[in-house]
Order: sequence, then C-alpha cells, then structure tokens
Amino acid sequence: MAPDPTSLHGGSLLIAWQLTNKRVLIVGGGDVASGRLESVLVADANVTLVAPAPLHPLTRELLDLLPERITWHNREFQDSDLLLDPIDSHSNNPSPKYVAMVFTAIDSYRESQRIAGLCHDLRIPINAADIPALCNFYFGSQVRSGALQILVSTNGKSPKLANLIRKRIESVIPPETADAIENVGKLREKIKERAPGVGGPLSKRRMRWMVDLCGKWSMEDLACLDNEMMAALVDGGWEKGVVPGPNEVIGDKAPKANGHAQNGHAKATADEIKGISLAEVAPVVGAFIVGALVSGLALLGRARR
Amino acid sequence: MAPDPTSLHGGSLLIAWQLTNKRVLIVGGGDVASGRLESVLVADANVTLVAPAPLHPLTRELLDLLPERITWHNREFQDSDLLLDPIDSHSNNPSPKYVAMVFTAIDSYRESQRIAGLCHDLRIPINAADIPALCNFYFGSQVRSGALQILVSTNGKSPKLANLIRKRIESVIPPETADAIENVGKLREKIKERAPGVGGPLSKRRMRWMVDLCGKWSMEDLACLDNEMMAALVDGGWEKGVVPGPNEVIGDKAPKANGHAQNGHAKATADEIKGISLAEVAPVVGAFIVGALVSGLALLGRARR
Repeated sequence: MAPDPTSLHGGSLLIAWQLTNKRVLIVGGGDVASGRLESVLVADANVTLVAPAPLHPLTRELLDLLPERITWHNREFQDSDLLLDPIDSHSNNPSPKYVAMVFTAIDSYRESQRIAGLCHDLRIPINAADIPALCNFYFGSQVRSGALQILVSTNGKSPKLANLIRKRIESVIPPETADAIENVGKLREKIKERAPGVGGPLSKRRMRWMVDLCGKWSMEDLACLDNEMMAALVDGGWEKGVVPGPNEVIGDKAPKANGHAQNGHAKATADEIKGISLAEVAPVVGAFIVGALVSGLALLGRARR
Repeated sequence: MAPDPTSLHGGSLLIAWQLTNKRVLIVGGGDVASGRLESVLVADANVTLVAPAPLHPLTRELLDLLPERITWHNREFQDSDLLLDPIDSHSNNPSPKYVAMVFTAIDSYRESQRIAGLCHDLRIPINAADIPALCNFYFGSQVRSGALQILVSTNGKSPKLANLIRKRIESVIPPETADAIENVGKLREKIKERAPGVGGPLSKRRMRWMVDLCGKWSMEDLACLDNEMMAALVDGGWEKGVVPGPNEVIGDKAPKANGHAQNGHAKATADEIKGISLAEVAPVVGAFIVGALVSGLALLGRARR
C-alpha cells in the first residue's frame, strides 16, 4: 500500500523498552514517582530511589513488597547517583558505568533541568515529569493483562481522551486473552525445540502453522490448553503438517460458549473480529422471541374477548 | 489500590520515544527495514539509510516522497555511519556526536552483533531485527490515526495474537477520534494562552475543566468543533467556570446520530464506554419489532381462517 505523506510526521516511536536486570534511577517520592516505580518494576528493572521521606504510600508498599529490587536513599539527588553501584558493573549490563534510565518527578524545575542536562551529556535516556522539552520519551495510558501490554498515546494532546480510549480497549479485551497469549508462547517454544533455528523455510513453516492455529482457535480455546493438550497438538498437528481444530484436541474440556456469554466474549476464533460472536447475536434473537411473544399474547388476549 | 506482586515482572516499559529533528541510522534495505523507516518518519526523525541497491519498493517510495529527510548511502555499513554529519552537530541535538538511534535489519547475524556491540559501547539505543538479545527495545503491532497512536505488545510471546488484538482495537476506535483529539489539543492550547503556567491551582482548574468537557461531549461532537465554536467555549465556558453542553455551542451543526449509526459508533459522550450506543440498541429494537410483526401476522392469518 502506498504510504500517505500526510501521516509521515507528528507522531512518536512507540516501543517496548527492555529493562530486565538493568538498574534505573528514580528521583522523587511522590505520586508521579510511585507510578514510574511500578512501571519499571513491571519491566523487571532494579531501582535506585532517591527521595527524602516521607514516601508516597504506593512507593512504601512496593518497597516493602520487593526490598531486594529497590534501593532507597532517604535524601536529595547527588550527581554520583547516575553511576552504577560496583555490584552492577559485573552484571551483563552493556554500559556498566551508568544507570540505564533516569526518571525525575520533583517539584524543582531547576533541579530537573540540571539532572536532565547531566543525562543528555552522558546519553542516559531520561523522563522528567511535566517537562516534555527535557524528555527523551513520554508515557501514555496503559493496559496490562499478563504478557499483554497496550500503550495509548495522543502525543500529549489529550491525556483524558487517551484514558477514555484505554478504558474502551480494556472493555473489548476478553479476560482469557492473557492465558491464550501465555499458552501460544509456550507452544511456540515447544515447536522451536522440535524445529530450532532462525530464518529459512523451517522458520517460515513454524510461523505459518502458528498463524493458522490462531486463526482456527478462539482465545478461550487457546486459554484452556494444558501441557498434555500441547503435546497432542505438537505430535498430532505440527509433526503431521496439519492444524487440528480445538474439538480434536480439547474434546470435552472445550469451554461452553453459553457459560461465558455473559462477559460479552463468547466462543469465536481468535480471529473473531472477522465474524460475529454469539454474544452479539443473542440479544437480537432474544428480542425477536420476546417481540413475537408479546405480540402473540396481545392478539390472543383480544381474540378471547 | 494495593499493587499485585505477581504482576510486577515479566513486562516491558511501553513508551513513546521522541525523535523530532533527531537523526537515526537504518542499516538494511529490505522489507523489515522499510517498516522501520516508515515508523521513524512518523516520529519526525531524519534518517541515514545505509544499504546497497536494490531497495524495497516502500523504501524507494518513501525516498522519493521525502528526499530532504532521508540520506541514502548505496553501500554496506561503515563504523563512521554512527557519527553525526557536521550539519547535525549545530542543531539542538542534545548529544551531537552520534546518531540518536540505530536499527539493523540485515541477513548477517555476525554484522548485526558487531554493530550492536559498537552501539552498546557508545550508549546508542539499538533494535536489531530478529535478534531480541541485542535489542534495547522491541516493536509491536501498531494503530495510528492522526495524533492517536496505540502499541500492542505480547512481549514476544505471540505476534499473531498481537496483530489480532490490534485489529480488534481498530474496530472499536470511532473514525472521528483523531479529529476529536486534534480539537481537544487546540482547545487546551487556547485555554493555556488565557491561563498560562505549569502546576498550581490554575493548572488543576484547567485540567478539571478539560476532563469535564471530555466526559460531557461525544467524540463526534468534539470532532466537529471549529475555531468559532472553540472561542465560544473559552469565552462562555472556561471564563465563566462552566462546561457548556454540545447543543449550547454547536447547535444546529451538531452531528445527527442516525447519519453515523452505520459505523457502529453513534452519538454518545466521549466517555461512551459507560453507556450503550444507539448502534448497539438498534438491532435489538428492530428484532423485537420484526418478532412482533411475524407473530402478529401469523396469528391474524390463523384468525382469518
């Protein structure tokens, strides 16, 4: 498809930054800083937190919950906070001298600016809360459900609308999605064990098989795969070059559509947006029947008179 | 709300990276590289593209479309490609010596690894296609509509499911959302002109007023605001400390719900997820009426006999 020149500007680069076993620095102990702390913990970072007491209740709670991942210094920022502790420089951090990322959420604009200047000189990515001009990156409204993460950005134009759109998205993500993703991830790993390697025809065949499976199975079916069923899928499906349907693998354990219809995401293939789910049809059928009954009873009542 | 310790790991940090007027380096001229090129152009980056001909058709097209933003070197990568051109070092780039970001999408694993090593030493963020272990950040499935950008990540577990979820999200974003976001952004700027400053009670009042407006107006109403209406909103609403309804401001020009019902996003407040839209109710009401007619006609038919 030809690119639309009018759309080739005005946005950001939306990415999933990797922080596993990296150390990040958070300067500030208030409301915003506690949100940053939670976000980087989700991403498996280790955190140095620099803020004089008292800390925000959420920060306190996170500190109690994960003391081994958060080091708190009960004081103001010092320039040496940008340096990694000696213990980290032996890890597999690719740039062992400095922290991997910095977040400031403090009241002093002047101090934020000073810290950002240091970070820019050292090429340390920084987000300074409320001062877009100093930031290498922004946050947005987020959805998280297991391995699924969704970021909604309006590029700073309307955080409120971003939040409303996030809520709308949350309302259309079936609750079993997280389990479905987890299981598809496991299944991919199992097939990679049988057919290892990156690139080439085998890798393409693997990808094709996974795509066909996700097209044929519902999120709900994928969500209820257990180890035994996965083994059956690999032996009876992948090895034979076919994609079995959920009934062939799950059998009696297949989720019943009616039992789940109330959550608005009844059984449909994972590719369900192409079809119409039972939950969408049920109210229409029900209304037809109710309409027929009401009209019928009314006419019968008249006929009796 | 208490944080859930089980959710505090296994994810990424989803962010909107800022590349306005920064220079990025893309190594590779194939399919994947052309996708990277489009993504960074959206984010207002300037690009150095290093790849021997032939280029992917999309890359060719982008090069023809935006020759002033893309510099193509028809050859393999050289270490000096990581350095900024002299012209860039006079710009307001905070780290003038090197490019801001690097993307490799080439067949040679060994060369990708070598380039990634150079980048890690120089603290230049890098994404090496298909080699997660070398990446500072990953991509995901994306939605874009004007200033609205959405990233869907399954943290590498299932690109196919990420893509299905993206499609599902696209199907529930009303088409007028982009215009609504644009207009809310303009309105915020207009109010900031009247009541400038960051932080403090005025900033809070401004935020509260915008939140109330977005709760009271539909995306469709917000989308049809013009300059005149915005001026009326600022003078008659913001200045008087009230949030007028769309009918008071848009009047006759208000969008008619029926005219848009076919796209599945009839008139509802921007906070529409809390309510039920007309498009959702219409089929049910219709089915009731049809059911009543069918039953009524059948009974009348019998009564006549």
